[in-house]
Amino acid sequence: MATPVSITRDSSQTDRAILGIRDLVLRGEFKGGERLAEVELAERIGVSRTPIRAALQKLEEEGLLELAQPTGYIVRRFTETDLDDAIEVRGTIEALAARLAAERGTSRVVLGQMRECLAEIDAVLAEKMVDLEHLNRYAAANARFHQLMLEAAGSEIIERSLKRVVSLPFASPSAFVLAQSKIPDAFDLLKIAQAQHHDIVDAIGARAGARAEALVKEHARIARKNLELALLHADALDYVVGGSLIRRYADDGR
Amino acid sequence: MATPVSITRDSSQTDRAILGIRDLVLRGEFKGGERLAEVELAERIGVSRTPIRAALQKLEEEGLLELAQPTGYIVRRFTETDLDDAIEVRGTIEALAARLAAERGTSRVVLGQMRECLAEIDAVLAEKMVDLEHLNRYAAANARFHQLMLEAAGSEIIERSLKRVVSLPFASPSAFVLAQSKIPDAFDLLKIAQAQHHDIVDAIGARAGARAEALVKEHARIARKNLELALLHADALDYVVGGSLIRRYADDGR
Amino acid sequence: MATPVSITRDSSQTDRAILGIRDLVLRGEFKGGERLAEVELAERIGVSRTPIRAALQKLEEEGLLELAQPTGYIVRRFTETDLDDAIEVRGTIEALAARLAAERGTSRVVLGQMRECLAEIDAVLAEKMVDLEHLNRYAAANARFHQLMLEAAGSEIIERSLKRVVSLPFASPSAFVLAQSKIPDAFDLLKIAQAQHHDIVDAIGARAGARAEALVKEHARIARKNLELALLHADALDYVVGGSLIRRYADDGR
Amino acid sequence: MATPVSITRDSSQTDRAILGIRDLVLRGEFKGGERLAEVELAERIGVSRTPIRAALQKLEEEGLLELAQPTGYIVRRFTETDLDDAIEVRGTIEALAARLAAERGTSRVVLGQMRECLAEIDAVLAEKMVDLEHLNRYAAANARFHQLMLEAAGSEIIERSLKRVVSLPFASPSAFVLAQSKIPDAFDLLKIAQAQHHDIVDAIGARAGARAEALVKEHARIARKNLELALLHADALDYVVGGSLIRRYADDGR
Repeated sequence: MATPVSITRDSSQTDRAILGIRDLVLRGEFKGGERLAEVELAERIGVSRTPIRAALQKLEEEGLLELAQPTGYIVRRFTETDLDDAIEVRGTIEALAARLAAERGTSRVVLGQMRECLAEIDAVLAEKMVDLEHLNRYAAANARFHQLMLEAAGSEIIERSLKRVVSLPFASPSAFVLAQSKIPDAFDLLKIAQAQHHDIVDAIGARAGARAEALVKEHARIARKNLELALLHADALDYVVGGSLIRRYADDGR
Repeated sequence: MATPVSITRDSSQTDRAILGIRDLVLRGEFKGGERLAEVELAERIGVSRTPIRAALQKLEEEGLLELAQPTGYIVRRFTETDLDDAIEVRGTIEALAARLAAERGTSRVVLGQMRECLAEIDAVLAEKMVDLEHLNRYAAANARFHQLMLEAAGSEIIERSLKRVVSLPFASPSAFVLAQSKIPDAFDLLKIAQAQHHDIVDAIGARAGARAEALVKEHARIARKNLELALLHADALDYVVGGSLIRRYADDGR
Repeated sequence: MATPVSITRDSSQTDRAILGIRDLVLRGEFKGGERLAEVELAERIGVSRTPIRAALQKLEEEGLLELAQPTGYIVRRFTETDLDDAIEVRGTIEALAARLAAERGTSRVVLGQMRECLAEIDAVLAEKMVDLEHLNRYAAANARFHQLMLEAAGSEIIERSLKRVVSLPFASPSAFVLAQSKIPDAFDLLKIAQAQHHDIVDAIGARAGARAEALVKEHARIARKNLELALLHADALDYVVGGSLIRRYADDGR
Repeated sequence: MATPVSITRDSSQTDRAILGIRDLVLRGEFKGGERLAEVELAERIGVSRTPIRAALQKLEEEGLLELAQPTGYIVRRFTETDLDDAIEVRGTIEALAARLAAERGTSRVVLGQMRECLAEIDAVLAEKMVDLEHLNRYAAANARFHQLMLEAAGSEIIERSLKRVVSLPFASPSAFVLAQSKIPDAFDLLKIAQAQHHDIVDAIGARAGARAEALVKEHARIARKNLELALLHADALDYVVGGSLIRRYADDGR
């Protein structure tokens, strides 16, 4: 028979360790390439070493850490190509969801909810401000929109696949939104992204799956543009979750 | 400091539990919808309950099990749509890899290795037999081919993403190959699949990324045809890893 | 032996008739559905009836006229779906050209010429005016850009195919640009179109054919948006070549 | 008022000249690069020089002839790339039609008619013969199938666009079918083409437009394979309409 209590306790400790380590790493407390010490992590997070070990293994699978030689784990460093690829994979799976949402048919109710998100974003953009308050409102409505699009495909398999891919920082649809507060011309990119949002809903509503798929793929590439711009403006990177892990070319003397 | 010994021991126990449970489930020892008991699993696999718990959690994340109410885990049942979606996701990510392999350029050496796999498959098909011996040879060369195609993209991120998606049974490129020993006209499907293989290598070599992407997506759909055919021939399903988890429409009286 | 003189004279008369009739029709002198009289056309254009007949046949092949019952020709009327389809066909062939330009490789010289066109458009947009003078400058640079993109594919066959498809009014890449002087928010559409131009050049330069193809298809759909907007603003349609042939739903009491 | 009688007479003479010259050229009576003499053509076809001139101009527009210097026309020679491009353009427009047929929805009646064509082809292939009699039956059902697919899109604009593109020899869906009587392994290509036909109908019926589009594009490329094979087997080229116009690399000493 299953033993719920201990499972719950165990997994809550492991989950706490996972969240704690991920947070430390993404906040930049450990730099890319730095070795992680179990004892130190156990003390800082306040759990025993067993859940720390399980968490390290999990985060290695997620791709945030890598195995060190001869033993242990180091914080992974990401090249610009890694980020491009992560964004491309995310965009590809989201695009698949959008295509299936169009082909299988999406109810008016869901299309209406998607349009509500877009009305909120339109309202944010109408104020023509790109400060953190406006960007946070943008990011919230944007995240809901992307979640609705995913659900519209009606596929648990795809939803699960996307969640795994997005477990990497940088790959989420809103990863670079806040960084835009420090990027010149960010407002133009936001308007283009929002125009794509409107086109995506139109395409899904018109059952034009090929168009929906192509639009979503291209939409994801706005994150790549934001990344490029963030790399040019050092303070922008501070607003990207995990920004400290991005291997800057300058750092390597390249 | 990291403590390698205990990590290794722990994770080897957990890995053993994961492999053991996965094997029992995919061999059909537990049916779709059946509740799993920790104690029984611990005894059958010969590890303690702690690694069993970690393994169950891992397999739930993979999508092979699902959380039961109020506690514990049951074996997941898959509908035909689930399988279609899993195959589509796999095909979509493989197709992305093939496109990038074409666009970024693939060396003659790697193209040559891909062609060697195809020469092996050509040799198998020239004997015009679809018994298990020939299908096993086909499956082996096929798996190498798909791995080379993935590596040709030169992206650790994509490779990792695909591995996670393929952690589901049925989604692997060779999942249905052995079932073809029990499917009439299987030989024609193998020849079509092999013609696609040749076209894929040509497209990558010609840097025709859009064509490579479209071909690989369509290539994956041969698995869907095999699935449909396997569902019509009960004995074919015995040769699909995890075939017992596929929810047959007849089972539900639909 | 060929007889150049008479060919030249004949075809110059026919060409004059073609240009004359096309101009009369597109300027709205004859309405959609109106029957054309040979004698009247011959007088207005100043050529004999033989070249008029040849011209009418040619324009029927082009799709601007249609055969009347029992004889003769009437001016064709176009539905919104006809226009959508014409734009989609144009976008599809241009997209093919862009893909091949990316896959076959485009020289730095040509990429540089494309970027010069975009610099001109950037300069026009920097003045934030959408009057006819600015739109004419936009349209000129836009037409050069699209021509360069087509030539980059290096395919006489594709160039010829596109020319035939674009023989229909409305289908040309700049068909709706001038109408934007009467459309609110036209400036935003111009900026989005220009952002797509930049992305297209980037994709061709990076040999990313699939992306280039998808971008150009989507780019063409901006013409559909302009069409929709022009149909809402009667005076905008006056700036579309052949605007008088578009069958307005209101006209039919629908 | 229009004058039907003379139009009819004129155009019937011109049509006769067009058909006559096209036939002479495609039958190989004039070789690629050869200059055409009006007087000789007028005598052989039995019409006066005026319709011959109109026909030459028309065939130059179609792409079968080209303007000579200083005057007159020569028979165009086609490179393998020209043929590839013509096939690619044809496939691209047919693919657009298939996508729209899927997205806009195709009636069961039309899907049934498409399946009837496929049943005929299945019957032909079941006899496992690739002689001219079987290939002619294949070509007839194949042509009907492609026509039905085109009509399923319900777009006069697309139909017209395709007709113009296919005015070039080699570009038609059945251009290389008869040549297969002289090509080893032709039967395998026919089976693959037919498997694609079945997939195309399935995709249109399932409203899977992106898949239908990709399948039709790839389907057209079978013509490119047939072309390559025909170039290797000189006698096969005799069965391709206009085969004598294909510039063989050997001819140029390349």
